[in-house]
Amino acid sequence: MDIEKVNSMDFGEFVDVFGNVIERCPLIAAAVWSQRPFSDVEDLEKHFFDFIDALPQSGQEGILRCHPDLAGRELQQGTLTAESQREQSGAGLTSLRADERLQLAELNAQYRARFGFPFVLAARLRGRAAVPLELARRLHCPPAQELRTALDEVKKIGSLRLADLFGAHPAGL
Amino acid sequence: MDIEKVNSMDFGEFVDVFGNVIERCPLIAAAVWSQRPFSDVEDLEKHFFDFIDALPQSGQEGILRCHPDLAGRELQQGTLTAESQREQSGAGLTSLRADERLQLAELNAQYRARFGFPFVLAARLRGRAAVPLELARRLHCPPAQELRTALDEVKKIGSLRLADLFGAHPAGL
Repeated sequence: MDIEKVNSMDFGEFVDVFGNVIERCPLIAAAVWSQRPFSDVEDLEKHFFDFIDALPQSGQEGILRCHPDLAGRELQQGTLTAESQREQSGAGLTSLRADERLQLAELNAQYRARFGFPFVLAARLRGRAAVPLELARRLHCPPAQELRTALDEVKKIGSLRLADLFGAHPAGL
Repeated sequence: MDIEKVNSMDFGEFVDVFGNVIERCPLIAAAVWSQRPFSDVEDLEKHFFDFIDALPQSGQEGILRCHPDLAGRELQQGTLTAESQREQSGAGLTSLRADERLQLAELNAQYRARFGFPFVLAARLRGRAAVPLELARRLHCPPAQELRTALDEVKKIGSLRLADLFGAHPAGL
């Protein structure tokens, strides 16, 4: 896929292709279509991120709440989006031992209770061993800082998903 | 369901129940959860509408672009959300003659080309005979006015969906 092809898409095609760049938020891709034409993939990505940054805090928290737990109920039940399934598998989260799953479930529950959104991490960049360590560390961060950290992870996930769609490696990751 | 029950929901339950009050925009329900507790269903509804009104124009257009065509491809393919399926069936749009479907498909295509979003109508409030007439009429409205009209229809649909969830009739419709 190249940017000329993207710029020629009607909004239906565009949302079909980019609707899950931000997990379960096709609204954001559908809004970004208003900003076409895009000069390149970085420009396209920038419009996704600008939309996120311009949302009120409740909207930013809303984005996070559309994400599944890592190694959580949706992974067990097979109801993840295709992208999340691939990412959690790639990070080794589908092959945890029972005690590792239990530990993560407990940490995820504590995190959700403390911050009011799920723990979001670009797991492909870290791997299974890092997930509980990073979760335990971030659990103790101040809420305002943690919101920023979590949104940065949303953006890393979005960059990787865009790179997959364009068949390229994202810059800066 | 009553408002005490709603106020006791964690964000996962809340998004499961209210995630499609605004068609395919669980982000909005997930954002509204930040505003709990709610005093009553009107208060809950107001937070959905306030979120929509506060979005930049691209975001409002994005909401519209998450809606399916009436009597369109997704109805034929069986890929509508449960709520849309019920609403389009209830309005008689599942039993159109071939010539009526063709007429609507042509009008829908003209509308999408002119405004950059699909024709949205709270079809349950109008019925099948009104749909092509209303579509043909709105096709000639100025774009800024049509955006407002379409968002008002999104809100009417949201009111009806909330009323269904609470087992009540919405006020003012």
